[in-house]
Amino acid sequence: MAETEHELKFAETVSIGTELLLGQIVDSNAAELGALFAECGIGHRYRQTVGDSLPRMVDGLRLALSRSDIVITIGGLGPTADDLTRQAIAEALDDELILDDSVKKHLIDLLEKRRVPIVESQFRQAMRPSCSEIIPNPNGSAPGLIARKGGKIVVALPGPPNEFRPMIRGAVRDLLVEQGDGVIASHEFRIVGVSEASLDEQLADLMSAEDVTLAPYAKLGEIHLRATTRAADSNEAESKMQNVIQTIRSRMGNTVYSESGQTLAEAIVAQLRSLGQTLGVAESCTGGLLGGAITSVSGSSEVFAGGFLTYATEQKHLMMGVPHEILRSPDMGAVSEECALAMAEGVRSKLGVDWGVSITGVVGTEEYEENGVQKPNGLVFIGVAGPNGAKAHRNLFMGSRETVRGRATAQALILLRRHLLKIELD
Amino acid sequence: MAETEHELKFAETVSIGTELLLGQIVDSNAAELGALFAECGIGHRYRQTVGDSLPRMVDGLRLALSRSDIVITIGGLGPTADDLTRQAIAEALDDELILDDSVKKHLIDLLEKRRVPIVESQFRQAMRPSCSEIIPNPNGSAPGLIARKGGKIVVALPGPPNEFRPMIRGAVRDLLVEQGDGVIASHEFRIVGVSEASLDEQLADLMSAEDVTLAPYAKLGEIHLRATTRAADSNEAESKMQNVIQTIRSRMGNTVYSESGQTLAEAIVAQLRSLGQTLGVAESCTGGLLGGAITSVSGSSEVFAGGFLTYATEQKHLMMGVPHEILRSPDMGAVSEECALAMAEGVRSKLGVDWGVSITGVVGTEEYEENGVQKPNGLVFIGVAGPNGAKAHRNLFMGSRETVRGRATAQALILLRRHLLKIELD
Repeated sequence: MAETEHELKFAETVSIGTELLLGQIVDSNAAELGALFAECGIGHRYRQTVGDSLPRMVDGLRLALSRSDIVITIGGLGPTADDLTRQAIAEALDDELILDDSVKKHLIDLLEKRRVPIVESQFRQAMRPSCSEIIPNPNGSAPGLIARKGGKIVVALPGPPNEFRPMIRGAVRDLLVEQGDGVIASHEFRIVGVSEASLDEQLADLMSAEDVTLAPYAKLGEIHLRATTRAADSNEAESKMQNVIQTIRSRMGNTVYSESGQTLAEAIVAQLRSLGQTLGVAESCTGGLLGGAITSVSGSSEVFAGGFLTYATEQKHLMMGVPHEILRSPDMGAVSEECALAMAEGVRSKLGVDWGVSITGVVGTEEYEENGVQKPNGLVFIGVAGPNGAKAHRNLFMGSRETVRGRATAQALILLRRHLLKIELD
Repeated sequence: MAETEHELKFAETVSIGTELLLGQIVDSNAAELGALFAECGIGHRYRQTVGDSLPRMVDGLRLALSRSDIVITIGGLGPTADDLTRQAIAEALDDELILDDSVKKHLIDLLEKRRVPIVESQFRQAMRPSCSEIIPNPNGSAPGLIARKGGKIVVALPGPPNEFRPMIRGAVRDLLVEQGDGVIASHEFRIVGVSEASLDEQLADLMSAEDVTLAPYAKLGEIHLRATTRAADSNEAESKMQNVIQTIRSRMGNTVYSESGQTLAEAIVAQLRSLGQTLGVAESCTGGLLGGAITSVSGSSEVFAGGFLTYATEQKHLMMGVPHEILRSPDMGAVSEECALAMAEGVRSKLGVDWGVSITGVVGTEEYEENGVQKPNGLVFIGVAGPNGAKAHRNLFMGSRETVRGRATAQALILLRRHLLKIELD
């Protein structure tokens, strides 16, 4: 094996099926396979999707064979006339299809057991390129295939996830580990309170390094930053990663909320639990999304007492005791720092909890007016009241109703985390 | 235009991002785009996925331009160094990048409004190929692009779904309709209270017809059934659709809640508004998801007063007045018909609304016990109290914590709709 060490092999995925091109199904199989390549130390530079057309399938396979070592097809192995993957692989490899007697026997057994009448077309599924071997399919009739010719490997997998998944976790994984180069190690940081551009600047030297690749992925106020490296063995991988991980930790400091795949809500519930403290919410424009996010965490009942959806302005007075002087003043109103503060403090006292978080704002309309004052879409006040006092934070989010509501919910979690950790606030 | 009529054009999708190849995210954008091509009468034969590598992006684009009329890229438009789509398009089209002053100005306004420090790298997003025009992005900083050169069209769209989706529903759709062959007509029914198998039986004759295709799509207690036909002009399309639409209407009756793309929550808000009635909620295991769903509807403030998140058992007593005799009895408890009824009625009286809806149940644990009695995961009681009395409904949902919470929220909306329309209840 010595001569192949550190010779990185590349795989290419070819997803087959007109239903994928028509957008009738989402190709989650291809994503699972991509994660497997990464895990097994196989490079993955290209993915193709083609419809159920024999010439286009053959062209796609030939292109893939010209630039990749291992080609994996997904789909097109069924018994009907538009299932052409076996034939396309044989053509692309200049091979011929032969009938596999063991598969034919297995099909007959299966159909008899299911009491399905046996029609000749079923035996299409028993055909295979002569240079291939079979991957048994415990959950369906079409087996998978591994074909080897001219130093290239083509693997054919069925499309239904319950048939696809056992194969990629079994025979395909074994093959990839054998073909893979050493090990892949990766580590994910979850970061809040930093823009993508600013992260890029702070880590510019690391971003351009070749040894450990950094991939930031931004979503709703968070960045998930994945560091990945490839090495001969796990010791080498660890030593390559160690410096980068330490550097990111020291530069990003407490903007990192998790290195273990926790969600932000999970991190907050864990933090409250470790402090032995409890939480309640008061939501206006988000209408329950913050409570929904917190209670998505298993075990949140230990720290989350409940909350108030004070959607109508008068309910802010009736349910939370927000004074009419605040709600009716042109300088304040329902969408104001003062109202957010009164709501957050109201939760603390009404529910007897340690922390109260409130959200009130304008979502999805450019024409919001209260007490004679215009307020812009996306203006959201978030209040956090805790054992050491209360503070309200002004935000201006962009976008549609749903975007603003999602960002406001994310921001409320981010602010609560900063208060819990006593991180300096703007 | 006569000579191009009925000349089918082909589009190709190029999804860009190493995170797609590593399987960190599933490419649902590409599926949405595929459905749009089908709807607009544009052929779609190839889809490619490439990583954030400039030479491979350029190669992929050149291949696409050699075999397709319209090439649409998704992703790689952000501000960081690995966002290379703009540059790749310019190279593939032998064009150059120029700075778009209007985009630069928009970016500066945006960053100032958000109080984000302006760094030079942000202006990467203001560059565009000289042969392109801008698609404005109301939900983010990177605009989309439409480039035209040598009879080919290249469209660049951002990856985040909340930025991608408005563009494909707006400018991209307009472009595709203009480029598409003939017309595609489609009509969507949104249906509740029928299983997919039963729908399939009731509409079996229509499902196998060739002229108008029916595609059911099931999600969380609902079925979206789309009827689609392709025709030379809109008159022909209408006459093909008319019979099918009438037949589905008469067979499915009041299980159809919308034919105009409304969500179930939107249909309910519209119904309440037409009745001049108001609503409040009390949620335990869903922790705000029902309130979140209702307030996702623009204008819901006219009918939704607010609600209570009574997550902790004692809060059901303190906030809603559920008697201790119910909460502490082995025959009843917090997860019981009686508690759901008391919560729904509590909302009506506390908020002075016409309708109160409550949810209480066991989510995500197989070991829930109260007052010495074991209760299974997925046992959820939903209460609906209205002007003509109150009723609680027992449900047993299967699945993970998030699935059960999602199904419970959907079922509460379905039950409320049946009460509002006085549809006979089981």
